[in-house]
Amino acid sequence: MRKYGIIGIGHVGAAVAYTLVTKGIADELVIIDKNEGLARAEQLDLQDMQGRVDTRTIIKINDYNELADADILFITAGKITAYQEKQAQGNRWAEFEYTKDIVQDIAPKVKASGFHGVVIDTMNPCDAITHYFQESTGLSREQVFATGTFLDTARMQKVVSDKFNCDPKNVSGYVYGEHGESQFTAWSTVQVNGLAITKLAEQQNLNLVELEEAARRGGWEVYSGKHYTNWAIATCAVKLSQAVLSDAHAAYICSCYSEKYGTYVGQPAIIGKRGVEEVLTLPLTEAEEAKFKHSADTIKEKFQTFSKEAQK
Amino acid sequence: MRKYGIIGIGHVGAAVAYTLVTKGIADELVIIDKNEGLARAEQLDLQDMQGRVDTRTIIKINDYNELADADILFITAGKITAYQEKQAQGNRWAEFEYTKDIVQDIAPKVKASGFHGVVIDTMNPCDAITHYFQESTGLSREQVFATGTFLDTARMQKVVSDKFNCDPKNVSGYVYGEHGESQFTAWSTVQVNGLAITKLAEQQNLNLVELEEAARRGGWEVYSGKHYTNWAIATCAVKLSQAVLSDAHAAYICSCYSEKYGTYVGQPAIIGKRGVEEVLTLPLTEAEEAKFKHSADTIKEKFQTFSKEAQK
Amino acid sequence: MRKYGIIGIGHVGAAVAYTLVTKGIADELVIIDKNEGLARAEQLDLQDMQGRVDTRTIIKINDYNELADADILFITAGKITAYQEKQAQGNRWAEFEYTKDIVQDIAPKVKASGFHGVVIDTMNPCDAITHYFQESTGLSREQVFATGTFLDTARMQKVVSDKFNCDPKNVSGYVYGEHGESQFTAWSTVQVNGLAITKLAEQQNLNLVELEEAARRGGWEVYSGKHYTNWAIATCAVKLSQAVLSDAHAAYICSCYSEKYGTYVGQPAIIGKRGVEEVLTLPLTEAEEAKFKHSADTIKEKFQTFSKEAQK
Amino acid sequence: MRKYGIIGIGHVGAAVAYTLVTKGIADELVIIDKNEGLARAEQLDLQDMQGRVDTRTIIKINDYNELADADILFITAGKITAYQEKQAQGNRWAEFEYTKDIVQDIAPKVKASGFHGVVIDTMNPCDAITHYFQESTGLSREQVFATGTFLDTARMQKVVSDKFNCDPKNVSGYVYGEHGESQFTAWSTVQVNGLAITKLAEQQNLNLVELEEAARRGGWEVYSGKHYTNWAIATCAVKLSQAVLSDAHAAYICSCYSEKYGTYVGQPAIIGKRGVEEVLTLPLTEAEEAKFKHSADTIKEKFQTFSKEAQK
Repeated sequence: MRKYGIIGIGHVGAAVAYTLVTKGIADELVIIDKNEGLARAEQLDLQDMQGRVDTRTIIKINDYNELADADILFITAGKITAYQEKQAQGNRWAEFEYTKDIVQDIAPKVKASGFHGVVIDTMNPCDAITHYFQESTGLSREQVFATGTFLDTARMQKVVSDKFNCDPKNVSGYVYGEHGESQFTAWSTVQVNGLAITKLAEQQNLNLVELEEAARRGGWEVYSGKHYTNWAIATCAVKLSQAVLSDAHAAYICSCYSEKYGTYVGQPAIIGKRGVEEVLTLPLTEAEEAKFKHSADTIKEKFQTFSKEAQK
Repeated sequence: MRKYGIIGIGHVGAAVAYTLVTKGIADELVIIDKNEGLARAEQLDLQDMQGRVDTRTIIKINDYNELADADILFITAGKITAYQEKQAQGNRWAEFEYTKDIVQDIAPKVKASGFHGVVIDTMNPCDAITHYFQESTGLSREQVFATGTFLDTARMQKVVSDKFNCDPKNVSGYVYGEHGESQFTAWSTVQVNGLAITKLAEQQNLNLVELEEAARRGGWEVYSGKHYTNWAIATCAVKLSQAVLSDAHAAYICSCYSEKYGTYVGQPAIIGKRGVEEVLTLPLTEAEEAKFKHSADTIKEKFQTFSKEAQK
Repeated sequence: MRKYGIIGIGHVGAAVAYTLVTKGIADELVIIDKNEGLARAEQLDLQDMQGRVDTRTIIKINDYNELADADILFITAGKITAYQEKQAQGNRWAEFEYTKDIVQDIAPKVKASGFHGVVIDTMNPCDAITHYFQESTGLSREQVFATGTFLDTARMQKVVSDKFNCDPKNVSGYVYGEHGESQFTAWSTVQVNGLAITKLAEQQNLNLVELEEAARRGGWEVYSGKHYTNWAIATCAVKLSQAVLSDAHAAYICSCYSEKYGTYVGQPAIIGKRGVEEVLTLPLTEAEEAKFKHSADTIKEKFQTFSKEAQK
Repeated sequence: MRKYGIIGIGHVGAAVAYTLVTKGIADELVIIDKNEGLARAEQLDLQDMQGRVDTRTIIKINDYNELADADILFITAGKITAYQEKQAQGNRWAEFEYTKDIVQDIAPKVKASGFHGVVIDTMNPCDAITHYFQESTGLSREQVFATGTFLDTARMQKVVSDKFNCDPKNVSGYVYGEHGESQFTAWSTVQVNGLAITKLAEQQNLNLVELEEAARRGGWEVYSGKHYTNWAIATCAVKLSQAVLSDAHAAYICSCYSEKYGTYVGQPAIIGKRGVEEVLTLPLTEAEEAKFKHSADTIKEKFQTFSKEAQK
């Protein structure tokens, strides 16, 4: 039996919930939101659809005790809109102050519930807040990770595949670092149709800087048109959860703890039943390694500042 | 190759689009919306997710010519929010004036595109606007139908299954008539776990009037919590389209043309590749037949009034 | 996490396994077969396909200890071919002697494994052997049930839908009794497109006896062409398991224990996490009730004869 | 509407058919087999299951005219068993003589049907027979291709992932050449978790020759246990077809025409609506290039010998 929990049923949480129900992935789903009317409305909408799908998902709301035996817990809380407005003004960290309060509210409740599954976070600022949530709950670093640059990597794949007129799945490689401004595409890891993109770029006079910028801008374009993003991020989150449930030992990039840099940061890892089974260390170029360190440091510094704030 | 079009990419249209992509149902999808930024944003969000799903859907935007060889066209336009605000004030017809303008805009373009597939409408007021769209395009009455009370029936199934602690799919039978206030549950058609609900109601002192009211209220409860409804209606719309594509000859209730009453109205029908292959006439009770006539008349009257308005 | 076990990896077991893997239903699957080479071959073939599907299923073989925490256990053992040859000679009971030995071999091992999930049996003679397996393991009657006439009902739906040129899912109602010769279609429960088939038969001069015979013959036709049947029976078995995992409280016909008749027999039931949550008693006609009793008695008598044999 | 044809409904064809139906991929399916009883039996078994799945597939048999508007045609004919018995004796080419007759029977019928979709072949000897079928029908080289080493590559992924305890999908790279003895793993293209396997092999003292041999032996192991292979090959074939239907431009290895070597041979290609949209040329090592040439020459020589035979 697959049991999922979702804390925060905004656009992302709702898209995650719908995906779990419409594809028959979840057998049971617990939705928790401070806005009880919203949690109830999403519960009803998802229940109303069940006469029209072949599978069934039992949907409960607003009971932390139900998390005791959940396999997966998505943290998708946060006034995404409020955050993105600030983000649009160039301040991705603006949300931390707000999400910090959320974590201080939910972490003790998650802890008290007896939850012992795996947490997948989508809140922003993704890397720091995940670290903060992990520390606040006392759950292990393996058990708690975040979508991080799994989404940015998907956007990079999309941008590159457009350029080469191919399936995004033909594009391998990763966007490392912060799910935020200091992220970077590690082009040395990227292949298109099995060919190193760095060589293709030379041969075809491709501007990789432009492609990277386009990938980074991806979220903003979506946001500017619809005022939130949900489909791609929800798809990423659900995919990670499936690797946990089946102990897939799949290699995905996500935000997880780096012993080397002492922070959560977007890096490839092996995902299995314990969550992050292993961090993968790929041979980056020196320049990429420097960008990675810079991105990790950016996250760490902010995390420390805000951790101090939180203790006041 | 399965090719879909969607006109109107609000909450419902977007949920339809996501369902088609995440479940690999559509091979190609054309999204059309007056708000170009919105259409572009949804296109991007859906494209960004394709590095994370096993199938691929080619997504195009804002080109009516692409409808020429589409199998299915969803009409999901209309400022649902504006409509629902008015609806909340008790005026479901309020939207007609608005959606009429939409139809007058899109119908000639659909016609000109050479589209010759099947249209599934979710706009409100559902029955009348579908009739109006059908007449405006000159597409056949078989080719054009609407979700109608397919959604209300799903809600009835949910409400009844809650009462009996069972799967909504154990509940057969239909909510007939208008996708609006004059609808009614034809209890004589309803079985729970294979037993006539009218008998169960007697035996267990169930108040069917209350259940019917709860089903009718279902949409409002969802709306009051999240300011729109999307998952269940999108699921209904997609399910109908699948029956068309596979020529399933499935029996579903939907809003389709009644020769008897001279109007589109929610009634069971056989859905196949031509759209509505056949209307099903079930043996309703006299009281139900009267309610059905009344609901059909309500729709017809409004449709005629507005048609006249539209010609001015 | 969804964990499945399969004992017996012949054509039916293998089709069940493939379904669980290709649709991403199972997270973990334990295959057990006396023929180690066969178990290994199916494991390999299913593993080889996993580079080509989006989900992952961990597949283990021939370790009863792995059943300790399995949610579902399919019993699909039995030399189906040997059985069907005898069956072709008119002796469905012929297999009992053979399957009895299988049960005597596997029941103690299942018991010893600590398995405490739900057993779904497809072995033949279905009703009696399931009863025998339930008694032999000491698992509860709720926990142990069989596909029984769930398959025969699917065949009846197919035959009837052919007659009416509609989707088999438009046909409700059940084939009751033995998964064998004494089964019967309870026509009073059957509706086509919402209309009682008994009335339709009168109006259209349909011969229900012929339809029933065609449904009963369904399996033989498949068998005579391919020497086994697997797709439909596997689909039925998997569907029942999904209702258990999601605690769906779905109404399906299956072979489960009848207090009234003191035997396992095909009758509608509510399927949920405990297995058979409730037996449903529909208002059959007197003639149907008599056929039901006769079919149940047939099963019971054989079961008792063989139980005595087994104790020798 | 997605329309599929299958010629040859043995174990592979049947598994392809079941996959298309159980996952709702095909809207219509035409099964053709010389053994009419077998075609009828599979049709019935697949129809019987349709009361238990959420989608519908219309299934027709033995009518070549139905191929006129099919999107995809699988050629899965050939007494696989007879072939594999000979293969077990070390003679993969043994089947050509037999399958040549099949092609001479079906090619004119396919041609006459007006079929103009894409052909995906799984017959053996895969590369040569596909070439022969393409020439015999006059369909273009883009339109006709085969699973080839797409299956062998899946097996290599499985074998390598076992070694590294990871998801087979973490293993990229290809097995090139003949779907037969002269195939080879192009280790220079293989990465595990993003790392070049050649480096990993050095570091960890891995014997790549053994791994390659294990991958090549994969099919034999399955065959020796179950006397045919079906799940993985069917999964490969269906996946290729989905890329065609959605014009995915996915990069998959398959058997397609090499201008360089003048033969069909397993090599990576871009698969889209026209079939093989483009052959991909990866930078193989000199030794790999030599093996590739040798494998291509092996196929070509045999093809020419048999073509001559066929003309007699």
